[in-house]
Amino acid sequence: MERMTVIAACQLALSVGDVAANRAAAAAAVAEAAGHGADLVVLPELCDTGYVFSGLAEARALAAPAADNPTLRAWRALSMQYATVVAGGFCELGEDGRLYNSAAVVAGDEVLAVYRKAHLWDAEKLVFTPGDGPPAVVSLPFGRVGLMICYDLEFPEWVRLAALGGADVVAAPVNWPAFPVPAGERPADVVRVQAEAGMNRIFIAVADRCRAERGVTWVGGTVIVGPDGYPLAGPVTADRQAVLTAPCNLAEARDKALSTRNDVLTDRRPALYGPVTQ
Amino acid sequence: MERMTVIAACQLALSVGDVAANRAAAAAAVAEAAGHGADLVVLPELCDTGYVFSGLAEARALAAPAADNPTLRAWRALSMQYATVVAGGFCELGEDGRLYNSAAVVAGDEVLAVYRKAHLWDAEKLVFTPGDGPPAVVSLPFGRVGLMICYDLEFPEWVRLAALGGADVVAAPVNWPAFPVPAGERPADVVRVQAEAGMNRIFIAVADRCRAERGVTWVGGTVIVGPDGYPLAGPVTADRQAVLTAPCNLAEARDKALSTRNDVLTDRRPALYGPVTQ
Repeated sequence: MERMTVIAACQLALSVGDVAANRAAAAAAVAEAAGHGADLVVLPELCDTGYVFSGLAEARALAAPAADNPTLRAWRALSMQYATVVAGGFCELGEDGRLYNSAAVVAGDEVLAVYRKAHLWDAEKLVFTPGDGPPAVVSLPFGRVGLMICYDLEFPEWVRLAALGGADVVAAPVNWPAFPVPAGERPADVVRVQAEAGMNRIFIAVADRCRAERGVTWVGGTVIVGPDGYPLAGPVTADRQAVLTAPCNLAEARDKALSTRNDVLTDRRPALYGPVTQ
Repeated sequence: MERMTVIAACQLALSVGDVAANRAAAAAAVAEAAGHGADLVVLPELCDTGYVFSGLAEARALAAPAADNPTLRAWRALSMQYATVVAGGFCELGEDGRLYNSAAVVAGDEVLAVYRKAHLWDAEKLVFTPGDGPPAVVSLPFGRVGLMICYDLEFPEWVRLAALGGADVVAAPVNWPAFPVPAGERPADVVRVQAEAGMNRIFIAVADRCRAERGVTWVGGTVIVGPDGYPLAGPVTADRQAVLTAPCNLAEARDKALSTRNDVLTDRRPALYGPVTQ
């Protein structure tokens, strides 16, 4: 934990259904990030298939099982070639025949975790089944990487679970649809991630996307936030591709102290929080 | 719920131990807010006694029981005189002889709620006993007012409890000590409140203070945030007194929808959040 860990978050232009081009965009971004010494590269949500499906049939035709998955195979090869960890979203065909909006952490030719998005956004409910597991937390040589996807971040309980699970950094593949932002304001999605990083004293690396897809535009909010809640790189907030990198001292995320008498986790009053689970 | 509710948040210059002057500052602020048509006026934390006590003895000498309290009596008179609701912090001597960092909602000559801060900051732990109750939520003609104090806001579980309890607006008396803020950034305290308002689709009105007290300086972050997570008034972020007002359609806080298929409360997965209470 002594050395700096270089985290990269990649904002990609993806295109629904053009899996080969999307994989190529991801590979190029990983290569660029590796050129900046990235130990961990975060890619967007559903970054193999694109997002704005015409419906279940289109998504199903593009999905693949986690166990035999061309996207994960490609990331395994990238993880070996560049000696880096890849975390990104893919369209999973479950062994139960259902579709999941999933993400994986891949390192050293291995898929270390597959996480299924637990909170589904809008038309995703017509296509995907929500996951029933907690946010993934994976131990790596440089620290512990948590994993959740897009709308999951809007549930502070979820980020808290990752922090309680020991995550030093949350890797968050997203596709943030754009909403109006008042003049002079930072998009609410970015503000939320800043707050959650600060409240849990963790790093959060968000990889968003760009380029309108079937009429949907994106925040382009790719950002890497430190445990004090301030951005270390980004937010991009522009409709262009970007590979952000930031050297992060992940040991900072192990220190939950705010003062000599305060700690963001031990100051919690969990016995009073019961109604949150009802 | 049809008419706009005018919410006021008052940033006051307080002075530890100078209770008469502090009460006068609060009275002047309530008068000014009422002049702007305020239905609800939020005052800072410990706004009768000041904050930076030399120790328990000084605080004890300044505290008074909720049942017979000069500060609450003054607010009752103000609530009658100006036909407004007052929510603010005071230094409470409990019937158990302990001190509490408390806040009250006062309306129509009545004390409708007394809430004791559940999460104590730094040297408060040497002076105060933490409360064991949930955030207060009070029903008023214009809507439901939640009440919590300063460091409570750093626990997203707490704001969620207020939202689950039906709060349309959270009144938050605070004394936010200043920490370094990177150039061009908004203070993390304000960012956090924005995120919590947005994640719960509620209004949050924060009343901070100003003027250094025994070497402690303040964010001066008084702000009124709407349920979209963007400020409606403020943040002040300056070391001066201010009375912010914003007309708020509290009915917006009853609409938790983010899309035709999404709702910030019903999209929660409470069965998966159990570890948050452990």
